[in-house]
Amino acid sequence: MKAIAVFPDRKELALIEHERPRLEHADDVLLRVLDVGVCGTDKEICAFDYGTPPAGSPYLVIGHECLAEVAEVGPEVEGLEPGDLVVPSVRRPCGVPTCAACREGRQDFCFTGRFTERGIKERHGFMTELLVDRAGTLSRVPRELRDLAVLVEPLTIAEKALQQVWQMQSRLPWTCDPSSGGRGGCHRAVVLGAGPVGLLGAMALRNAGFDTTVYSRELAPNPRAELLASIGVRYVSSQTHDVLQLAQELGTIDLVYEAVGASGLAFEMLRALGPNGIFVFTGVPGRKGPIEVDTDRLMRDLVLKNQAVFGSVNADRSCFDAAVRDLLEFQRRWPKAVQGLITGRYPRESYRDLLLGKPGGIKNVLAFSEAR
Amino acid sequence: MKAIAVFPDRKELALIEHERPRLEHADDVLLRVLDVGVCGTDKEICAFDYGTPPAGSPYLVIGHECLAEVAEVGPEVEGLEPGDLVVPSVRRPCGVPTCAACREGRQDFCFTGRFTERGIKERHGFMTELLVDRAGTLSRVPRELRDLAVLVEPLTIAEKALQQVWQMQSRLPWTCDPSSGGRGGCHRAVVLGAGPVGLLGAMALRNAGFDTTVYSRELAPNPRAELLASIGVRYVSSQTHDVLQLAQELGTIDLVYEAVGASGLAFEMLRALGPNGIFVFTGVPGRKGPIEVDTDRLMRDLVLKNQAVFGSVNADRSCFDAAVRDLLEFQRRWPKAVQGLITGRYPRESYRDLLLGKPGGIKNVLAFSEAR
Repeated sequence: MKAIAVFPDRKELALIEHERPRLEHADDVLLRVLDVGVCGTDKEICAFDYGTPPAGSPYLVIGHECLAEVAEVGPEVEGLEPGDLVVPSVRRPCGVPTCAACREGRQDFCFTGRFTERGIKERHGFMTELLVDRAGTLSRVPRELRDLAVLVEPLTIAEKALQQVWQMQSRLPWTCDPSSGGRGGCHRAVVLGAGPVGLLGAMALRNAGFDTTVYSRELAPNPRAELLASIGVRYVSSQTHDVLQLAQELGTIDLVYEAVGASGLAFEMLRALGPNGIFVFTGVPGRKGPIEVDTDRLMRDLVLKNQAVFGSVNADRSCFDAAVRDLLEFQRRWPKAVQGLITGRYPRESYRDLLLGKPGGIKNVLAFSEAR
Repeated sequence: MKAIAVFPDRKELALIEHERPRLEHADDVLLRVLDVGVCGTDKEICAFDYGTPPAGSPYLVIGHECLAEVAEVGPEVEGLEPGDLVVPSVRRPCGVPTCAACREGRQDFCFTGRFTERGIKERHGFMTELLVDRAGTLSRVPRELRDLAVLVEPLTIAEKALQQVWQMQSRLPWTCDPSSGGRGGCHRAVVLGAGPVGLLGAMALRNAGFDTTVYSRELAPNPRAELLASIGVRYVSSQTHDVLQLAQELGTIDLVYEAVGASGLAFEMLRALGPNGIFVFTGVPGRKGPIEVDTDRLMRDLVLKNQAVFGSVNADRSCFDAAVRDLLEFQRRWPKAVQGLITGRYPRESYRDLLLGKPGGIKNVLAFSEAR
């Protein structure tokens, strides 16, 4: 069968012939891949900045944002049958007996760093016709999300982040503060970046009741700003407002959600965070040189304003299930906007353009096989 | 009656004649002050870097670390009677109806910044013979803590920080990880600084089961290192180990507790924080210039290691009550070490030496009046 793979040693990306997988464990499920989303990590892997094949394999089948259909189930699988739609999670436990996180199915918090990730690190991914995984790694998706569920995996980033925001802010009475001038929302959130992670983060924040603004480079009006306006989210361009102007215009900022991977902008934005504010990092920056930072001021604000900052990577099963629920809610509230996140569905033969080119749009999807 | 006050306008510190307070509300309590600890904030106020008198007063009575004895109670006070020992909390609510924190008695998280603080901001403090406060601001102290309870207020810093650490780390299975090489402890903590806040923080961490190391400038052996050794806490000097050597020697660092207010050191230490690690800022730095920081690396680590950072200031009633309980426990486990934190008790007439000089030792205490 066909699969899309990178060969790191010979720096090659190719549509290859890959061995058809078989059920091995009693709880294995055979899946027919329908949609695979293309994301920044895939492009980094195709640029050979990242990505490790499984031990003994010269290549890594890529892809980790997947919607698939159940084709066959092992004898001990319960609650799934052929024809069901599912989204597989990405990370698998490290297997080190002392890793408290992996032991409890929370490999998104793996302590040892020896986890594997499908399509990224030491495990083949989802850009293939058929795949096999354990039933416990699959989140069921209702049929009405057929056209959207490829967004489940990127949405889990926001789900895990928001779960942690609520857990962390349980340290104080973090409820609506009308004195901060909230315009319709409860807390005020700023999302840095208008890529798929930023836009899905903005939807999740808006859906959770936040007064939300997306701050990104492109001048408005533009299609992303219009999409955001249609769901009640403000868009501000960094070309018309610097961080201080943004903060002045908005008022107290309670939450910042970084979804670009730009550390200079992020550290500037930290200065605008309000009392008891929380700053979420989800983007992974490149490796530029050090910059000048007024660490005294940052530290004084952190302490005197009781601020919190955290980074978040990957997500567990509960976040995949939450993403499925939220996507249904987005579809109900904002059908056009959420559909607008998917720029196009392309046949698998288009892989080179999508992975090596600059295809534009928001989320591009490779269609593998049609659901029966 | 006598009190110790600063006059910011004329830049003067003096032992003054201050009006004797009276019960005004039905839940007021009249207190006879026994001990008042001297801390860095007091010295900053005496250097006129900080501190604001109450509206209309030319002076501010200073002091916020207090042990007092109940002298008289208002008609609606329950559970307190003359002769009881109490520690008053420091911060009072802002009174702005929309401040969700102050409304719920969590003025330690005040949103508006319009809180007041006894001995610091717009309210007279505790370096006086008698004082009046509402019963709800007082934590009762058992008689056996007579000689130690002046440490309750500085210990509340660690109590609030630890409360938040548990709340924040509830986001993951944060249990013992023997693979990290823990030597007797469960998680591994590093405390930056060996002043009273650092030493009390180290005791609280050790008491909570952390494998704990204090990292400070002074070369060992020294009295603080000995005191720490007696409670099973390691001491490492920054003159013999840089941050990377420290991290290499210790292994994975799960928690850092900053108690110096040195932002350069703190940002260096951030680089040594382990996976799922948490970094607590409690010290307020001065205002030096910006420094070079590899923000890309910090951000990458925050994200890929799921790290969290937070600042913490002040404490609520529950932290004062927790500090009383912990101090009893310290006294039971480490009677000599905890007594060793109090360098000396001096008559109030020594105030100039303690507040303006460099008195040395760990915690110096002004004795106001003896308990009856």
